[in-house]
Amino acid sequence: MISGGDDVPRLLIEAAKRLETPIQEGDIIVITHKIVSKAENRLIELANITPSEPAANFAAYTGKDPRVVEAVLRESRAIRRMSQGILITETKHGFVCANAGIDKSNVEGRETVALLPLDPDGSARRIRLSLERLSGKRVSVIISDTHGRAHKDGEVNVAIGASGFPVILDRRGEMDLFGYELKVKRIAIADELAGAAELVIGQASEGTPAAIIRGYKVRVDEASKATDLIWPRDKDLFL
Amino acid sequence: MISGGDDVPRLLIEAAKRLETPIQEGDIIVITHKIVSKAENRLIELANITPSEPAANFAAYTGKDPRVVEAVLRESRAIRRMSQGILITETKHGFVCANAGIDKSNVEGRETVALLPLDPDGSARRIRLSLERLSGKRVSVIISDTHGRAHKDGEVNVAIGASGFPVILDRRGEMDLFGYELKVKRIAIADELAGAAELVIGQASEGTPAAIIRGYKVRVDEASKATDLIWPRDKDLFL
Repeated sequence: MISGGDDVPRLLIEAAKRLETPIQEGDIIVITHKIVSKAENRLIELANITPSEPAANFAAYTGKDPRVVEAVLRESRAIRRMSQGILITETKHGFVCANAGIDKSNVEGRETVALLPLDPDGSARRIRLSLERLSGKRVSVIISDTHGRAHKDGEVNVAIGASGFPVILDRRGEMDLFGYELKVKRIAIADELAGAAELVIGQASEGTPAAIIRGYKVRVDEASKATDLIWPRDKDLFL
Repeated sequence: MISGGDDVPRLLIEAAKRLETPIQEGDIIVITHKIVSKAENRLIELANITPSEPAANFAAYTGKDPRVVEAVLRESRAIRRMSQGILITETKHGFVCANAGIDKSNVEGRETVALLPLDPDGSARRIRLSLERLSGKRVSVIISDTHGRAHKDGEVNVAIGASGFPVILDRRGEMDLFGYELKVKRIAIADELAGAAELVIGQASEGTPAAIIRGYKVRVDEASKATDLIWPRDKDLFL
């Protein structure tokens, strides 16, 4: 259970020790954004929100709670799709997802909802540096959220924050089995790692907000971040 | 190295034994579609393709090889996006991906390309039943391909064929830590498992066309399949 101001890196280190799998050199720590949002006090009380007129209009159209719509609009820089029960926006970070990532699960208080961290890449970096200082090991950190997809049913966990490794593994220029040069392979490993972690993190009452991925080698990269995965608008063919 | 007519399930069983990790009850076997396409003779020689007039037109517009465009059109039921160097179609199965999934990597012959399996779900089912008969263990099978995404840079591995387990883990109705009922959690575990496998399968010269995921529990489901993950057109908000 995480509350505002909690020291997430210290709690992770302690939990890993308690589970007899202390953090090792090269570990990739995937953390569900919910505990980061809680530690950073990114919770809001719907009771304290007065919907603006646009929010009330959109709420009537989508059938959503006007206070939730207001919160979504405040967290968004653009609306991408609206329809019955659906409000897909572009968050201020640039992620395209339902309700600007605002959600209710595993948040205490019947009318309290969690917002995404203000700067998930910055949070990932702070948590990574703190984990490295506390453990003496070099690690990578991913902060994850569960997003729907265009074209496909169901949701998958993706990286909304990342620090310590290249979020894309660029394999262009490598040779295949027959000496043919790969031209298009750029693998979004940050998202694949986040998805893999989701399989053990779960999202209901497991109370497992983080996972350690061990044995997958990544290059050290201090600059790469999850927002690098977002297409600029002129490259997104499904605006 | 797989050739037309090869018995993929038998080769997988033998490789697993050789690697001293024989298939176990509940294993999830993720197989890159390339070896399935090869075994099913889904290769074509570009030299044998005469581009139609539409293919020639689109090739001029996109800057692509007219023979490749012709092959893509033959494998597609609709075009979703076209621009410089980009041709995103809806395959006959319904997957939205670049070039109808046609690709060149790890295919012998300078002008030979691989098509997707005709019916990847059917292939997954046949391979699963064969693996189960040969091993005496119940398993699940995923046939994977690497797809780009709307809104985001980079590619991830996804399931284009699946058999033996529910491709979506529906957690709606479960309770969170505070007794709040989950309303929207439907996790596309088939895609998360495919993405996890990609991290070890690779796509260049590793010659690792399959992975075993062990220890992740799935429910037995004989009916669920990867094409269940495709939004019908009226639900795809990013047509």
